[in-house]
Amino acid sequence: MTDTFTVTAVVGNPKRLSRTLTTAEALAAAVAGPGAPTASTDLAELYLDGIEPPHDGFDHALARLRAADVVVVGTPVYKASFTGLLKLFLDQLPPGALDGAVAVPVTIAASAEHRFLADLQLRPVLAELGASLPVPSLTLRENELPELDAHLAKWTGAHLPALRAGAAA
Amino acid sequence: MTDTFTVTAVVGNPKRLSRTLTTAEALAAAVAGPGAPTASTDLAELYLDGIEPPHDGFDHALARLRAADVVVVGTPVYKASFTGLLKLFLDQLPPGALDGAVAVPVTIAASAEHRFLADLQLRPVLAELGASLPVPSLTLRENELPELDAHLAKWTGAHLPALRAGAAA
Amino acid sequence: MTDTFTVTAVVGNPKRLSRTLTTAEALAAAVAGPGAPTASTDLAELYLDGIEPPHDGFDHALARLRAADVVVVGTPVYKASFTGLLKLFLDQLPPGALDGAVAVPVTIAASAEHRFLADLQLRPVLAELGASLPVPSLTLRENELPELDAHLAKWTGAHLPALRAGAAA
Amino acid sequence: MTDTFTVTAVVGNPKRLSRTLTTAEALAAAVAGPGAPTASTDLAELYLDGIEPPHDGFDHALARLRAADVVVVGTPVYKASFTGLLKLFLDQLPPGALDGAVAVPVTIAASAEHRFLADLQLRPVLAELGASLPVPSLTLRENELPELDAHLAKWTGAHLPALRAGAAA
Repeated sequence: MTDTFTVTAVVGNPKRLSRTLTTAEALAAAVAGPGAPTASTDLAELYLDGIEPPHDGFDHALARLRAADVVVVGTPVYKASFTGLLKLFLDQLPPGALDGAVAVPVTIAASAEHRFLADLQLRPVLAELGASLPVPSLTLRENELPELDAHLAKWTGAHLPALRAGAAA
Repeated sequence: MTDTFTVTAVVGNPKRLSRTLTTAEALAAAVAGPGAPTASTDLAELYLDGIEPPHDGFDHALARLRAADVVVVGTPVYKASFTGLLKLFLDQLPPGALDGAVAVPVTIAASAEHRFLADLQLRPVLAELGASLPVPSLTLRENELPELDAHLAKWTGAHLPALRAGAAA
Repeated sequence: MTDTFTVTAVVGNPKRLSRTLTTAEALAAAVAGPGAPTASTDLAELYLDGIEPPHDGFDHALARLRAADVVVVGTPVYKASFTGLLKLFLDQLPPGALDGAVAVPVTIAASAEHRFLADLQLRPVLAELGASLPVPSLTLRENELPELDAHLAKWTGAHLPALRAGAAA
Repeated sequence: MTDTFTVTAVVGNPKRLSRTLTTAEALAAAVAGPGAPTASTDLAELYLDGIEPPHDGFDHALARLRAADVVVVGTPVYKASFTGLLKLFLDQLPPGALDGAVAVPVTIAASAEHRFLADLQLRPVLAELGASLPVPSLTLRENELPELDAHLAKWTGAHLPALRAGAAA
């Protein structure tokens, strides 16, 4: 790995400025390291005016993905899966858009029973786009969000080395 | 089962008037029986102007679902799953929107390898919404569409009795 | 549906006489109705001496499946899925062994987070064998087993009509 | 990564000396590099006498897994999933048995339509055991086996760097 690497987040919560966004950005920052810049795309903003996003905005989001070593992909668990908004964006990406990138899903579920469901469905989709997924996703329940820092610290402690190794490969 | 029952189709291909729509409507007609009316919702029309559909259009689509004994749910296979457009609509449905309905997925894949992938992901989502799924989905490859009538006949021959029994339960 | 229909259970807990067995048998009895006989196959017994079961025992188990209108399939959640013991038996069944049967999975998980995982993986396998799955599975956590009667009553109240309709189709 | 790393294969085809075994061993050798020793466990041998394997054999297989940087996990696609024999072994492993290891599934399907199905179900199971899965699985159809060398070369060309980086993390 070079000394720095590029991290971006893309978040598919239909509510703008959601807790999913905050959480994904926090993970992106933790992955990038202290002081390193990160960027995030809030799909609720990008798709404000239609299921066809503005060309400029879409191209900008795509360029960020292509430039990223690590892509944090955030979604709440809706109807036992990832959100349609997230998949709408992923559907519009060209084949192989995530080739060479490491993807890390971040999912937030309302109940314990649904904790793994969006993740189970999302990982094969991201792999289809060419991403590698070398580390477990960050899967949280809503009631764990007040202790986000502790959960992030635990996750990064366990998985950051493998994530950085994957991103540098 | 009563003599007649109500069938509706909802289709999540982002292209309007898609072959997915045609195929789902053909299956809906075959399920309803000769001369019975069916209705379909082309989500590419409903979401023409944004990820929040017009209230009237959405309420109309929801009313159709609630009135239906059988809901045919059509999607192409995109990025190894159902489309984001379809899921966007399903996400906006109230919990239990498909309670008491029988759902039949119709999926169309570009390659043999992807034939079952949207179906595998879609069935648990429809079950989460309360639908029952008593019969196998109609999973087609694009190159099978020219012989759609034959495939429909085979599918209905094998599964229509169980489907009608489920719809009447 | 005829007045009576045939229900059998097959259970893949590697421990003999497991709570999975008890639970699956209780559901089978509830589905069959008061006084109706049911039968169950404890795979921990069938595979006592090897991964190739005795011919007599296997043929007997297969005959029960073929004769059944409803097959209750029980498994604990192991390593985020159904058990290998259950799948070992299912692998040895001939193609279409469950054609015409209604299958109802019963899964028991140690934790809430794993509640749906065996079910998600098992349903497509049973469908591949020809079963229809018209109703939701009975998915329990271990700590719900002391109130099994209440959970069974709730499940049968919600799903028995559709199950019987499916079994009669 | 150190100069050498340890690769082992575990194969769940119920037939001894299967083509699944041959294929998994070939991938293990390609991953380990020229001249490096690899080891493989043919579960059809280990479970020759029962669903409880001999203690010595099981302990030996487990020790191999614990010592391995990379574990190649082979299975044919049976009934739309991995084999019961493979899962029987995985069920008997202690929690976290694959912590720190990189897993690479190798699946062999009879038909194109089933190509991805065992892989989809197996990856979450291996992740549950603690493995990381940084690279796509080798998923082959039976009719591709005569050109195994070409498929292996293509796969290793695309994925070996990321795999070795993951194994060294």
